[in-house]
Amino acid sequence: MQRGFFITLEGGEGAGKTTLARGLSRHLAGLGIPALRTREPGGAPGAEALRGLLLGTALDWDPVAEAMLMFAARREHWVKTIEPALQAGAWVICDRFFDSTLAYQCHGRGLDAGIGQGLRDIALPGVSPDATLVLDVPSALGMARAARRSRPDRFEQLDGMFHERVRQAFLRIAAQEPERCAVLDAAGAEDGILSGALAELQCRLGFPL
Amino acid sequence: MQRGFFITLEGGEGAGKTTLARGLSRHLAGLGIPALRTREPGGAPGAEALRGLLLGTALDWDPVAEAMLMFAARREHWVKTIEPALQAGAWVICDRFFDSTLAYQCHGRGLDAGIGQGLRDIALPGVSPDATLVLDVPSALGMARAARRSRPDRFEQLDGMFHERVRQAFLRIAAQEPERCAVLDAAGAEDGILSGALAELQCRLGFPL
Repeated sequence: MQRGFFITLEGGEGAGKTTLARGLSRHLAGLGIPALRTREPGGAPGAEALRGLLLGTALDWDPVAEAMLMFAARREHWVKTIEPALQAGAWVICDRFFDSTLAYQCHGRGLDAGIGQGLRDIALPGVSPDATLVLDVPSALGMARAARRSRPDRFEQLDGMFHERVRQAFLRIAAQEPERCAVLDAAGAEDGILSGALAELQCRLGFPL
Repeated sequence: MQRGFFITLEGGEGAGKTTLARGLSRHLAGLGIPALRTREPGGAPGAEALRGLLLGTALDWDPVAEAMLMFAARREHWVKTIEPALQAGAWVICDRFFDSTLAYQCHGRGLDAGIGQGLRDIALPGVSPDATLVLDVPSALGMARAARRSRPDRFEQLDGMFHERVRQAFLRIAAQEPERCAVLDAAGAEDGILSGALAELQCRLGFPL
């Protein structure tokens, strides 16, 4: 059985990750490729329980503890859900992965990047997505989109400066790992973003799409 | 203000840690020393929420994720509860601390000890108890005591071999750090264990008790 590809979608609030994930899995289904759509934090029973604690507004986490919880949830997600699906030949399209921790906890909230890297080495030694699509929108537009959608969670409540730092962090990560990461201008129309994403994936995965 | 001492109690299920913690804080109160009695996992709002997830039987955690959650809870406990109390001059008597993760997750469940050490370095750089009392009872006696007390939690449900490995791990930790750790024979009477504990603390803390 050919192992599936692991694709992550990254970007700030309201960048359109959910819409793109839906479009990608519909396109893959059309090609007869089984695809699992999942998102972080969450995606496995223990990770979903942690998602509730992390995104809820009832608890105020120390930044180091918060990063540890993010990686504990990610470890569960990887071991119980993502890796088994890839082994079974499915492609996995994941809304957020470790780049989000780097962007939100380290660049956004000022956590030492060495801690993020140390936790990644412990939780997911040797794991990396086959391709990462970074959806880039001006943070004000993203926040306006997110606000129309639902009640703000704990991260969405943070201020505009925070979200701009997060945006810049994603662009920096993409610049540092251009073979894995493609930046898509996500301010425009849905169809255009999907075809841009397919073109970037085709070139990174060496697989006709 | 003189900083308080940080004392941890370690040992398997039913070793008598709760009884000893109560006796110690009563003794300190008699000497006019303010003491905070706390226990792990838990001791701070976020850590208590994690305690529910860790000790409940509903979720089956990957060993690495479990250790990460233990240290995330410990970080919250340290930052929000223990360190502020010590700074305010109180002594802190803590039922379980990082030796329990080493004994249960690493020696008991086979998690790489390097992972435990790596998480400790990230969560609690430079933190160590001033004194640790290891309460030692044959694991069968401890389990029998614990069974009389309450419905077994997820760790108490594990088998006798597991609990014997945990016991040996505590003894090994104490042997490696004799300046910090004292082993108390906890099979005997309450009063004798308390006076033994006071003697060991007096010698380790250089403080008349």
